[in-house]
Amino acid sequence: MARRFMWMAASPPAFRPMRALVIHAPKDLRLEEIDMPGPGAGEVLIRMAVGGICGSDLHYYNHGGFGAIRIKEPMILGHEVAGHVAELGAGVDGLAVGDLVAVSPSRPCGTCHYCGIGLRNHCENMRFYGSAMPFPHIQGAFREVLVADATQCVKADGLTAAEAAMAEPLAVCLHATRRAGDLFGKRVLITGSGPIGTLSVLAARAAGAAQVVVTDLMDSALDFATAVGADRTINMATDASDLTEYQTGKGYFDVLYECSGAAPALAAGIAAMRPRGVVMQLGLGGDMTIPMQSLTAKELDLRGSFRFHEEFADAVALMRSGKIDLKPLISHSVTLEDAEKGFVLANDRSQAMKTQIIFAKG
Amino acid sequence: MARRFMWMAASPPAFRPMRALVIHAPKDLRLEEIDMPGPGAGEVLIRMAVGGICGSDLHYYNHGGFGAIRIKEPMILGHEVAGHVAELGAGVDGLAVGDLVAVSPSRPCGTCHYCGIGLRNHCENMRFYGSAMPFPHIQGAFREVLVADATQCVKADGLTAAEAAMAEPLAVCLHATRRAGDLFGKRVLITGSGPIGTLSVLAARAAGAAQVVVTDLMDSALDFATAVGADRTINMATDASDLTEYQTGKGYFDVLYECSGAAPALAAGIAAMRPRGVVMQLGLGGDMTIPMQSLTAKELDLRGSFRFHEEFADAVALMRSGKIDLKPLISHSVTLEDAEKGFVLANDRSQAMKTQIIFAKG
Amino acid sequence: MARRFMWMAASPPAFRPMRALVIHAPKDLRLEEIDMPGPGAGEVLIRMAVGGICGSDLHYYNHGGFGAIRIKEPMILGHEVAGHVAELGAGVDGLAVGDLVAVSPSRPCGTCHYCGIGLRNHCENMRFYGSAMPFPHIQGAFREVLVADATQCVKADGLTAAEAAMAEPLAVCLHATRRAGDLFGKRVLITGSGPIGTLSVLAARAAGAAQVVVTDLMDSALDFATAVGADRTINMATDASDLTEYQTGKGYFDVLYECSGAAPALAAGIAAMRPRGVVMQLGLGGDMTIPMQSLTAKELDLRGSFRFHEEFADAVALMRSGKIDLKPLISHSVTLEDAEKGFVLANDRSQAMKTQIIFAKG
Amino acid sequence: MARRFMWMAASPPAFRPMRALVIHAPKDLRLEEIDMPGPGAGEVLIRMAVGGICGSDLHYYNHGGFGAIRIKEPMILGHEVAGHVAELGAGVDGLAVGDLVAVSPSRPCGTCHYCGIGLRNHCENMRFYGSAMPFPHIQGAFREVLVADATQCVKADGLTAAEAAMAEPLAVCLHATRRAGDLFGKRVLITGSGPIGTLSVLAARAAGAAQVVVTDLMDSALDFATAVGADRTINMATDASDLTEYQTGKGYFDVLYECSGAAPALAAGIAAMRPRGVVMQLGLGGDMTIPMQSLTAKELDLRGSFRFHEEFADAVALMRSGKIDLKPLISHSVTLEDAEKGFVLANDRSQAMKTQIIFAKG
Repeated sequence: MARRFMWMAASPPAFRPMRALVIHAPKDLRLEEIDMPGPGAGEVLIRMAVGGICGSDLHYYNHGGFGAIRIKEPMILGHEVAGHVAELGAGVDGLAVGDLVAVSPSRPCGTCHYCGIGLRNHCENMRFYGSAMPFPHIQGAFREVLVADATQCVKADGLTAAEAAMAEPLAVCLHATRRAGDLFGKRVLITGSGPIGTLSVLAARAAGAAQVVVTDLMDSALDFATAVGADRTINMATDASDLTEYQTGKGYFDVLYECSGAAPALAAGIAAMRPRGVVMQLGLGGDMTIPMQSLTAKELDLRGSFRFHEEFADAVALMRSGKIDLKPLISHSVTLEDAEKGFVLANDRSQAMKTQIIFAKG
Repeated sequence: MARRFMWMAASPPAFRPMRALVIHAPKDLRLEEIDMPGPGAGEVLIRMAVGGICGSDLHYYNHGGFGAIRIKEPMILGHEVAGHVAELGAGVDGLAVGDLVAVSPSRPCGTCHYCGIGLRNHCENMRFYGSAMPFPHIQGAFREVLVADATQCVKADGLTAAEAAMAEPLAVCLHATRRAGDLFGKRVLITGSGPIGTLSVLAARAAGAAQVVVTDLMDSALDFATAVGADRTINMATDASDLTEYQTGKGYFDVLYECSGAAPALAAGIAAMRPRGVVMQLGLGGDMTIPMQSLTAKELDLRGSFRFHEEFADAVALMRSGKIDLKPLISHSVTLEDAEKGFVLANDRSQAMKTQIIFAKG
Repeated sequence: MARRFMWMAASPPAFRPMRALVIHAPKDLRLEEIDMPGPGAGEVLIRMAVGGICGSDLHYYNHGGFGAIRIKEPMILGHEVAGHVAELGAGVDGLAVGDLVAVSPSRPCGTCHYCGIGLRNHCENMRFYGSAMPFPHIQGAFREVLVADATQCVKADGLTAAEAAMAEPLAVCLHATRRAGDLFGKRVLITGSGPIGTLSVLAARAAGAAQVVVTDLMDSALDFATAVGADRTINMATDASDLTEYQTGKGYFDVLYECSGAAPALAAGIAAMRPRGVVMQLGLGGDMTIPMQSLTAKELDLRGSFRFHEEFADAVALMRSGKIDLKPLISHSVTLEDAEKGFVLANDRSQAMKTQIIFAKG
Repeated sequence: MARRFMWMAASPPAFRPMRALVIHAPKDLRLEEIDMPGPGAGEVLIRMAVGGICGSDLHYYNHGGFGAIRIKEPMILGHEVAGHVAELGAGVDGLAVGDLVAVSPSRPCGTCHYCGIGLRNHCENMRFYGSAMPFPHIQGAFREVLVADATQCVKADGLTAAEAAMAEPLAVCLHATRRAGDLFGKRVLITGSGPIGTLSVLAARAAGAAQVVVTDLMDSALDFATAVGADRTINMATDASDLTEYQTGKGYFDVLYECSGAAPALAAGIAAMRPRGVVMQLGLGGDMTIPMQSLTAKELDLRGSFRFHEEFADAVALMRSGKIDLKPLISHSVTLEDAEKGFVLANDRSQAMKTQIIFAKG
């Protein structure tokens, strides 16, 4: 804590050097010093505390991108972050220096057609941290200091910074849950027990699901699902026939969260769905082959779910209320200097669930 | 007309011989004589007038089935039928001898879980005419005389028998339209201009769609779409780039009816959809490879649509109201004796839209 | 337990005498002996254990009915009941003699238009226990022995009979909750803290509501709401201004359960709703004056909720899962011989929440 | 036409005098000269052509307001307007001098919570032309010259200015229609055959309603409903029993548009609704007494509908497509100098449907 405010005590220069994690090419991740301007009107300067490594960060690190999305210039990674407010721009209300905030990486324009009709996650001019989609790329938030709009900051009193940095992936799952409709009393299948799958267990549980079953190919991943409240887990590598009992008759599950991005997982899930069931597709896979005859004959509803908007604040509120606890999912932490070790670790699903980078102690 | 009632004038024997179209194996279609019992309580005996050949009839004729569904014993084909009531069983109200009726091929049990919650098209004990799905198979309605439950019969006064026999495929499209949600003012793309695609033009139009664009690979098929009210047609074999203009920005169409069963058509359609658009899958294709990344990023809603229930009566009502006219889609008629020629004709998409078999003149 | 089976050990006569609670006129409630036939095919004979007194039972007792609904002949009261299976009719599967069952009082015909489209609570031929609505009236379930259809019986292993008899009012609240749509993360106001209001607290909580506030005019009633999990209660007789803080700006609550039947409660609730909020009306009040200008300008959605159908089984499942506990709401029990004392007690809201009649010990 | 551009030919002064219709007190309507600034960035200056008199304008004229909403200072009336673009502010694209435009009176802030979630008609800082709701009041559009944001202007090529000025009330009905959900094949009752009721006939028809029945107390009003496509009209003053035929059984209509603001009309309509029917409340009445027992027992859905947002452009598009024709509803036109005569005329429902003020010829 002391260090953070010491830095603030000195009159800050117009541009301040700080370090950021920049991807240049596959496996070429560099900790670089960058100059940073101070906050403008309506903005705040945040001293970053924690950043979680997401699957898309890994794709950039491993392959330089995914699908048609490729880095064309150096890009700062990261979009699951939390930090402390260190300086307030003009006209900022409701935030104070020292506040722990979860920072939403989503910055819609507010004026395009989709913003106008309430679909801000489909903003035509979206600037989402650490995305190579537009060019020039949108620089990310794995950096010691970040200037963000005050509206991106959600106060996270009572949470640890590590928890606050989980707001982003939880928001992804809350958005999918909202799009899935009423889950109260429903039977839920989740395929894929990575961070999104396990956070979906918590979301489905909090939304009143009657039963939550999770599949994956690794027991170590499924153990996390059990830890956060899954009723049952099935290792499809060794016990695929256990899912078959749900595939009898017209099918069993009301809702499927497809979080694996793997076509066989989706196909097995579809076989276990009841007519008119809802399949939420959360993973951004590429082309997938699906059993369309079953989907049609059962009149399933396969819905894409993409990022989030107001669910970011909901995620923080849900953690603060104590209704869900994400700490069991934070499996590893590394220092900024050791960030690349974090990426290597996150690549190993047999060990890691969520790996976070610690930008500042305290 | 005279001939119909003459037959009834004689006191009918307990079992009356009549002829039916029976599929024994691929390309082995026989006109066979079968004994028929009289109507029981709540049933009516119908003297068949017209039967339309559906894509599934063609699959049985050409290949003996489709996907995992195969004929294992001889089966009477046919489920798009209309005829005249010739005899009333005990306790039948609201129908009279001589009435022209469209006959719904859908016979749910009324008591299973899915019937109980209003999803009768997902009945666990469904008996749908001309289906090889359960074994013994459900015999079809391409027959001179049919005993049906009175509740399957919808009076079709004011329509021709040929129109009344179109109620079934129209009901399929009305069901998909209902599942698509409110179409008023929406921009609609229809991929595939066969009978289901062209009937979907009429359904979307009647539901208030602002614009209807249809794609196919054949101009002859697209001409039918134009004839029933499509605003624009695009031949994807020759003018695929015309669809590209709708793929700019975030996409254009609100609703897609996928009626082709072809993965490239679906993929091209998805590329032209706006975020949160609805894709209705009507065709019972097999496995299909879909651009899942686009579906997810746009948060599309891909919904299967399967058969119908109360929409069968709606289809007859819509035709009787004059709001839609299906006659332009009935391209060919053959006699019962020439029924196989009808199947050959229906196989040729460059010529035929809907081919019907005439069971009885008048 | 012994007593129950002793009675069954003897070969039962075709008609067996038993006692039932019959309302003849306001305040004229009699315990009368009635002959009872054995169970037919698909039916079971139930030895009643517990019956809860509902508001409508009180209306019949106090006033001979409510609104236009009046008793015209003697009628057995009661529809919140549970008991033990004592005899199985032919063809009954899945139930055994001795099973504790919650008995649904709802008996739709299964064949009318509304049953056909899944709206069984709107059955045109509904026979709901203890209802004076049709004539002859539908006799109720406050009786020592009841013959019911096996489909009305839901096994309640692991529950007490007293809890099982709460399935019916809980089903009413689950139905309203389902009709209210997704409650996850929503802010909920409940006006009226009687049995339906307090059960709605439990339902909203289980469905993931973020906050539940309850209003009533009596602290004693509000104490029950607190006991089952309300975040806050407001006594509108003494602290009405406390609700005002939620009426600022555009309003606060997402969902309102109106359980009081009192127009001032509804009006105060509407003033605290946010635009596009949902107001569930559960009470069967008479004419009510509502602030239509507010309802329109806020585009509220005022939805009636009436009885239930599949939610009866859901209610039992929810109790058995341990997710909700209704025992705190069962405030009083009386013996069958003292049943009228139970009605007097139930009339006194300052004392009683749910009063139940014990038909058989054990 | 010449006159319009002549005015523009001269270099405009910074502030230009023009005349506006200002309400000072009940029945005190004055045509006053007011200075008008030129258009700023993103704005256009419109030379007003036509303005329709709405019910709320009449309330201000007759009573100085309605309910709690009262004029506290002089206010220019009017919000149903169309005119020609006369001058473009900096940065305006897509509009040219001379364009006929329908001008939306709705000006949400775009940044508040409700704007952010797509509910722009519930903007916390709404500035809607001619509204006494906030103070200082929002001045209206009954004026010779108006400076509006370019985003408020929808090009109306191919329409007359009189038709373009109908976009606003049509948008109100399109918004209610969208909120009513899918109308295709539905049976619709409309209570009240004023401008909103008759425009609702056109909206319901265009959305595919199977049947539209309209009630009112005046034959002259009902004649307009017939002229625009109602299947049947019922004069409740003389033939109320005609509605009774729809009140048998469980009820008949799927959707009710309540456009009268009269409690007896709503009550009669509710009695004719089928279970789970939807009642759209469009009128901004005060307190209304409703038959809550029927609403609850039928599980009706009473939804307020307030103004519109994106439906304003939809209204213009629908007129331009030729799918609906509003000309039969424009019953009277008066000159600006005779504007007060227009108000007197509009007050007389036995004569007038929609009365418009002509601000400029051509």
